[in-house]
Amino acid sequence: MEWTREQRYLPYEKWSALTLLKLQSQAAKSKYQLHYHIHPTSGLLNDPNGFSYYNGQWHVFYQSYPFGAVHGLKSWVHLVSDDLVTWTNLGQAVLPDTKLDSHGAYSGSARQIGDKLFLMYTGNVRDQNWVRTSYQIGAWMDEAGKVTKLDKPLIEAPDHVTEHFRDPQILMHNGKYYAILGAQDKKNQAGKISIWRTDKIDGQWEDLGYVDLPDMGYMIECPNLVFVDDKPVFIFCPQGLDKRITAYDDVYPNMYWIGESFDFDSGHFVTKQKAPINLDYGFDVYATQAFNAPDGNAYAISWVGLPDSSYPTDDEGWANCLSQVKKLSIKKGKLVQKPVAAMKSLRRYPESLDGDLEFDEGGQYELKLAIKKDQEGTLTLAADKNFEQGLKLSFSTGSHASLTLDRGNVGADVNVDYGTTRSLALPKNRELKLRIFVDHSLIEVFVDGGQEVLTGRFFAPAGNTYAKMSTGIDYKGSLWQLKDM
Amino acid sequence: MEWTREQRYLPYEKWSALTLLKLQSQAAKSKYQLHYHIHPTSGLLNDPNGFSYYNGQWHVFYQSYPFGAVHGLKSWVHLVSDDLVTWTNLGQAVLPDTKLDSHGAYSGSARQIGDKLFLMYTGNVRDQNWVRTSYQIGAWMDEAGKVTKLDKPLIEAPDHVTEHFRDPQILMHNGKYYAILGAQDKKNQAGKISIWRTDKIDGQWEDLGYVDLPDMGYMIECPNLVFVDDKPVFIFCPQGLDKRITAYDDVYPNMYWIGESFDFDSGHFVTKQKAPINLDYGFDVYATQAFNAPDGNAYAISWVGLPDSSYPTDDEGWANCLSQVKKLSIKKGKLVQKPVAAMKSLRRYPESLDGDLEFDEGGQYELKLAIKKDQEGTLTLAADKNFEQGLKLSFSTGSHASLTLDRGNVGADVNVDYGTTRSLALPKNRELKLRIFVDHSLIEVFVDGGQEVLTGRFFAPAGNTYAKMSTGIDYKGSLWQLKDM
Repeated sequence: MEWTREQRYLPYEKWSALTLLKLQSQAAKSKYQLHYHIHPTSGLLNDPNGFSYYNGQWHVFYQSYPFGAVHGLKSWVHLVSDDLVTWTNLGQAVLPDTKLDSHGAYSGSARQIGDKLFLMYTGNVRDQNWVRTSYQIGAWMDEAGKVTKLDKPLIEAPDHVTEHFRDPQILMHNGKYYAILGAQDKKNQAGKISIWRTDKIDGQWEDLGYVDLPDMGYMIECPNLVFVDDKPVFIFCPQGLDKRITAYDDVYPNMYWIGESFDFDSGHFVTKQKAPINLDYGFDVYATQAFNAPDGNAYAISWVGLPDSSYPTDDEGWANCLSQVKKLSIKKGKLVQKPVAAMKSLRRYPESLDGDLEFDEGGQYELKLAIKKDQEGTLTLAADKNFEQGLKLSFSTGSHASLTLDRGNVGADVNVDYGTTRSLALPKNRELKLRIFVDHSLIEVFVDGGQEVLTGRFFAPAGNTYAKMSTGIDYKGSLWQLKDM
Repeated sequence: MEWTREQRYLPYEKWSALTLLKLQSQAAKSKYQLHYHIHPTSGLLNDPNGFSYYNGQWHVFYQSYPFGAVHGLKSWVHLVSDDLVTWTNLGQAVLPDTKLDSHGAYSGSARQIGDKLFLMYTGNVRDQNWVRTSYQIGAWMDEAGKVTKLDKPLIEAPDHVTEHFRDPQILMHNGKYYAILGAQDKKNQAGKISIWRTDKIDGQWEDLGYVDLPDMGYMIECPNLVFVDDKPVFIFCPQGLDKRITAYDDVYPNMYWIGESFDFDSGHFVTKQKAPINLDYGFDVYATQAFNAPDGNAYAISWVGLPDSSYPTDDEGWANCLSQVKKLSIKKGKLVQKPVAAMKSLRRYPESLDGDLEFDEGGQYELKLAIKKDQEGTLTLAADKNFEQGLKLSFSTGSHASLTLDRGNVGADVNVDYGTTRSLALPKNRELKLRIFVDHSLIEVFVDGGQEVLTGRFFAPAGNTYAKMSTGIDYKGSLWQLKDM
């Protein structure tokens, strides 16, 4: 089905409830549907928004287009959790219903201010000639989940940026509010992170220029500043980044840059890191949102999906999901991402896997493996009984140590133009520890305690839940079925 | 808001998706919302339908009107579970979209036949003069959840019944299919259970007359025949039953009748029981559906809600829920209803409560109590900090032993015309064992291992989660917070 612009931007009230009910049912029944990850109730999910802690609960929102697997008129869907693992979907929270967000309530962030949650986001507006204006706008959410929008923009695009100016992250520092935004500099069409400051959240915002990172690609989307082990870390999506700076395989990468210090007012960023580093070595991670939580930890959650890409569920009228929440730390100059502790609360039916084995993994599980050094083999997952198809995780723990995820022969193809394998070099002659989470059509591989993560969607035929370790591998393993969240 | 007939029967496609999204969000955010019971995603839920086991999963459906807390144009919403506790909502499965169910896909049952699930239900049709015709119709559901309706009715109302002829339960006996239906006999306007038989599910159905139970009230709704400990048990809702036959407090009761034998072909029912017995001694149980599962057990699930009644959530555009699943057995001529084993999988944060105590129960919990004999007191739940309001469970375990649930001073009133207390006589001078499940606005009290059950909705202000046992009571207790399902 081809979607016209008119269809994609049809107001929500013009769609019929019957269409929506059928889309919701179709998405819920999909064999690819996620069971312990945040997924759309219908239509397309993209960026996580407003990841925050407020009123005794964790909050996250996702960018939603409810009527199909296309980037149409966007709203925010709201979810809450007590443990960062089990989320309750509270439905559409921010609708594109004012003249400042008429063509989409685009991405943004949230932060508790006083006794309310303040949302800061990009209002997307198109004029009759389809010329875009982006407004950075605000809204207050109360404890009952009621959202009241401010009637004036907080920030309008300054002269030095193009129409690409969006995704505000609201921060607080020394008693003032700051916002960082993704921007395209007008002069050289380069990707930048723009900084703003105000004393009063709905007062006058002051343009502080750009963070003094090098120009990256032609646009930076979804910038985040988060303090991890006391170091400032920027997490962002540089579009069009030269692969000679940092190699990546997806259409656009999600990267990070760890600093030693950051001056909010001048944008001065001191760093020992030479170039951005890939946040994830899998296939589909983008628009990661991170924040410093009141419990002292920094947490991140990612969109598992990519811009300008299509997925097999598009035909079922839904697409994409969010990753599990990842707890951030720094080790030897690299960002470490670990599952949160409460992920263990999903475990049931533990099994030991020691030595060579074939087993039925069931499609929704955690697999913990320790593979001894100097081994070389392949773990096949999501396979048919005869192992003619399957998701392959190949490893070497010898002198040319590496890990490769291959989704080239799983079932339905995904974004094959960008390759069907992703590889990662590993420290040589060392034991390899993996925690692998599979949720029907999603795999998340945490390598050596989260020092690297490989995330990817895969689309296997129903019933392909067989697994096999290649013969002769010296390893130990544990398998748990995981409950629905 | 007053609903006109036109509004209530407006086709689903005429409602806007925006209205539905707002209703869904409002229901999800309600402080009264259920967290481990089946509840409507929006609008009104009534009877459980099609409670069954098929394709390795438990299935249940509920009667749904998605657009408000009124009895409008009904459809079936489908849910599946692996454990009878955690249910996944798969959305609208049977829509009122043919000329045989144009004014509602009303209640019915389900049973695996071959490799599909066969649904048998009442199609409600109104003509231009709003005269009703009820068709008993069928549909096949496949493993992917796709529903294909038969294009001819299975059964049309025979001459000896009025327009009140509905709620088929499909059964199998000696290689033939049987259906029992709720009926109003035309001659004396009495409530009856009608029996039908066929060799071939979509073939000719034969009218076998009525089950030879006494006339009960003016109509019987939702009849079920289930075999419990090898005895035939009818569970049904006699409307207008003379209270001198069996006393009851609600507008309509849900009752059962245990037999020694039942002859499917003649309708002959041998029983030692003199009169129907109340299935539940609480406030809001109706339309219970029960079936014999392949695991050898008989299970029941109830609508917690009543016909012709209003609830405080009506103003939020949603109403009612289903009970937890109850496992049936017979003890001393009475039907025993127990929580299923997997309910324990929801438990977390165990606490011991021994002796006099005030505690914060949190709103979503299981409380297990053993109250010694010859005690008299009150357990107050869902109370404010000062215990000015609360849900009261008063007990005496002395010579006039009884249990009374009082929702008269909780917060918002419910159906006060039918009284605000429900009482139950208990065996005298005996220890009393209670398992109490609370889910925000629902209480289910299992008395002495399920020998009696009291179920009721209650509507307390937000934050009223304080509990107190009256002083000097000799008891032991355990409290668990319960996870969301």
